[in-house]
Amino acid sequence: MTTEKIDGVSVTTQANVYFDGKCVSHGITFADGTKKSVGVVLPATLTFNTGAPEIMECVAGSCEYKLDGTDAWVKSAAGDKFSVPGNSKFDIRVTEAYHYICHFG
Amino acid sequence: MTTEKIDGVSVTTQANVYFDGKCVSHGITFADGTKKSVGVVLPATLTFNTGAPEIMECVAGSCEYKLDGTDAWVKSAAGDKFSVPGNSKFDIRVTEAYHYICHFG
Repeated sequence: MTTEKIDGVSVTTQANVYFDGKCVSHGITFADGTKKSVGVVLPATLTFNTGAPEIMECVAGSCEYKLDGTDAWVKSAAGDKFSVPGNSKFDIRVTEAYHYICHFG
Repeated sequence: MTTEKIDGVSVTTQANVYFDGKCVSHGITFADGTKKSVGVVLPATLTFNTGAPEIMECVAGSCEYKLDGTDAWVKSAAGDKFSVPGNSKFDIRVTEAYHYICHFG
């Protein structure tokens, strides 16, 4: 089941641009103050650092990810989620655009 | 005056990726059905075609644009807007990321 739309949010108009544009996201805020982001990773192999724990939900495309301290690349496609601990990092490799929702906390 | 947030919208989670990622946007829909998009153009010189008329509102960064049938490059920076007729096109050149809201119709 893919989350195609998120209703009732405030969107931050300025994008977050990471890795020279290989990752672009927009922040959204729910009525209760919860923050998430919607974004896309373009074809690349990147390493992301986390502050807060994150849940990455794929809404289109796919990626492979490798959590810090593991050796396994795991595929994540539309409808899949994976969790990343706080103050950690993960590698991601993308060959077709990976569209995601990032849930924090 | 820059529009930093847009409240009370539904956001489409899958990004629109144009020109190999030189332009990335997310669609938003208001309660009354009005559609806009929030996006960013990364450093590049591109030509965009319009279907519906568009108003491009800069929320951060800047660009220069040239409307079809004109010879003048015009700067547009945060807080500025420019209008593009329907079924037309415009050139845009960006040297720092141009963050925008696209209003249709």
